[in-house]
Amino acid sequence: MADLTIGIDIGGTKTAALIVDQQGQPRAESAWPTDATTPDHLLDGLNRGIDDLLQQAAAAPDDLLTIGLGIPGRVNQETGEVFQAVNLKLNHYPIAALLNGRFHCPVIVENDVRAAAVGAFAYLQQHEAVRHLAYVSLGTGIAAGVILDGRLYRGVHGMAGEIGHVMVDPEGVVCQCGQRGCLEAIAAGPAIARQATFLPPPVTTAAVYLAAQAGQLQAIALIQHVSDHLARAVQWLLMTYDVEKVVFGGGVTRAGAAFMEPLAQRLAWLREQSPLANEMLTEAKLDLLPADYNAGTRGAIHLAWQAQPTPTETGH
Amino acid sequence: MADLTIGIDIGGTKTAALIVDQQGQPRAESAWPTDATTPDHLLDGLNRGIDDLLQQAAAAPDDLLTIGLGIPGRVNQETGEVFQAVNLKLNHYPIAALLNGRFHCPVIVENDVRAAAVGAFAYLQQHEAVRHLAYVSLGTGIAAGVILDGRLYRGVHGMAGEIGHVMVDPEGVVCQCGQRGCLEAIAAGPAIARQATFLPPPVTTAAVYLAAQAGQLQAIALIQHVSDHLARAVQWLLMTYDVEKVVFGGGVTRAGAAFMEPLAQRLAWLREQSPLANEMLTEAKLDLLPADYNAGTRGAIHLAWQAQPTPTETGH
Repeated sequence: MADLTIGIDIGGTKTAALIVDQQGQPRAESAWPTDATTPDHLLDGLNRGIDDLLQQAAAAPDDLLTIGLGIPGRVNQETGEVFQAVNLKLNHYPIAALLNGRFHCPVIVENDVRAAAVGAFAYLQQHEAVRHLAYVSLGTGIAAGVILDGRLYRGVHGMAGEIGHVMVDPEGVVCQCGQRGCLEAIAAGPAIARQATFLPPPVTTAAVYLAAQAGQLQAIALIQHVSDHLARAVQWLLMTYDVEKVVFGGGVTRAGAAFMEPLAQRLAWLREQSPLANEMLTEAKLDLLPADYNAGTRGAIHLAWQAQPTPTETGH
Repeated sequence: MADLTIGIDIGGTKTAALIVDQQGQPRAESAWPTDATTPDHLLDGLNRGIDDLLQQAAAAPDDLLTIGLGIPGRVNQETGEVFQAVNLKLNHYPIAALLNGRFHCPVIVENDVRAAAVGAFAYLQQHEAVRHLAYVSLGTGIAAGVILDGRLYRGVHGMAGEIGHVMVDPEGVVCQCGQRGCLEAIAAGPAIARQATFLPPPVTTAAVYLAAQAGQLQAIALIQHVSDHLARAVQWLLMTYDVEKVVFGGGVTRAGAAFMEPLAQRLAWLREQSPLANEMLTEAKLDLLPADYNAGTRGAIHLAWQAQPTPTETGH
């Protein structure tokens, strides 16, 4: 019986995968370095990863109900093609059809941050009946995925939540995208590390956050600057979407309390500014995913489940 | 037969009303100064305005199918109560029940900007099959109303689109709300007039825009500053919601081309910054409501229609 689902999260450096049963109970998980030398290398890695997961779960391709895949790029959900996945050197690549050709089950593809937003939503559902949230991924880049009334909101071109490339400082540095003063050029992982010229190289984002936490003055100034822009991005998200939660995840947030405390402080400062800010920017709206929860693979699994035909649609 | 609908838009200084048949054809329209001396004065004005409209349309209260009402404040749609309508001195005011008690038809109440967003959507529908838009009201204040997939999106607390009170300049002036550097404190009508100390008082927003259009250097600098912040707000709206259109309306936009051209220029400047900005911030996404189209009354009518029970619900 085809009752297993695989969720895959392709990252720039690492790919993670999880296989679960229909109740969502894990049967096996796996991770491997992403090899994007060529599209064929990437596909080979996925094929081998899936084979390996099936073997770990003592299952065969016939046992697969569906596969969900999160990928850093733009996605045409209907055709399962990937576009402008620059870091993976993929463009106009029919990844769903290629995996389907080998594993003979439906393959659902989604942008990685949007898939992770669905995973973040599934995580929060375990604790509270949240219906609207924005998931902000802070890593190599910055983007948000938005859940409105329990469903992923993608926008007209699948670009809803691309807040990393809003100009927040017209006098800021030029972003990789070409635009000056993008949020991503201030507050993404590489941007934080690049600005930390006062630390001995190689600088990690976590090291900067920890140095600030330990009282290093230049690190404190830098993290305050980053947190100020992140707090204002939270304000934009709450004032545009009026969601119940803004959930942070991604590599930068692994600094844990060292990441969260300066951001919470900056939000507290904004709250003091006005009764409206005090009402809208409550600390309870802010959340951090646990470091051991993989929102990407979990979200890919939920999206794959949601795309399954319902009993009515199949005529039962 | 109850087939007439009234749409009312209560403004801080003027109230406008329109009565239409089931095809949306106007039977009569009316406008009167808003008298908010006390809640009773406001209600008297509404009662007399509705009586007057009915008389003009040679109709009686029994001919009313429903009434839609846009009001500058927060609204509990289920109870039809208004909260924090500061300019109208109303709080916790059961306006729907009071009008219903006199005219005996369902009364639907919505925040004025959100009602106008529905009206802007109805206007665009006449020309193109837009499904997602943000309507930005620029007047005494700044706020947006958002239509996603053809429906008004309100957010969890009915605050979605309250972009006037996002901090866009931490060094800016203090806003009426108490927060420093709100978008509203830079780009709303009173803010523009206040900054135009180089013009002889009393200064109107239109006069500042026209002075800039005529080449007055200080006016050009001020309007460029305002347009820069508005263009970045457009970018935020497009990158968060990924809507098809950002439609401007409200008193400030009455300056027409003198308003639109500096904003379009600033968006063109943003487009030059990156391929992504070039793709997302196209001029075709920007729209201005015609000065003679009352989005507020039209939107209130559509909301009132949408709240009508469908034939199925009434058991036919």
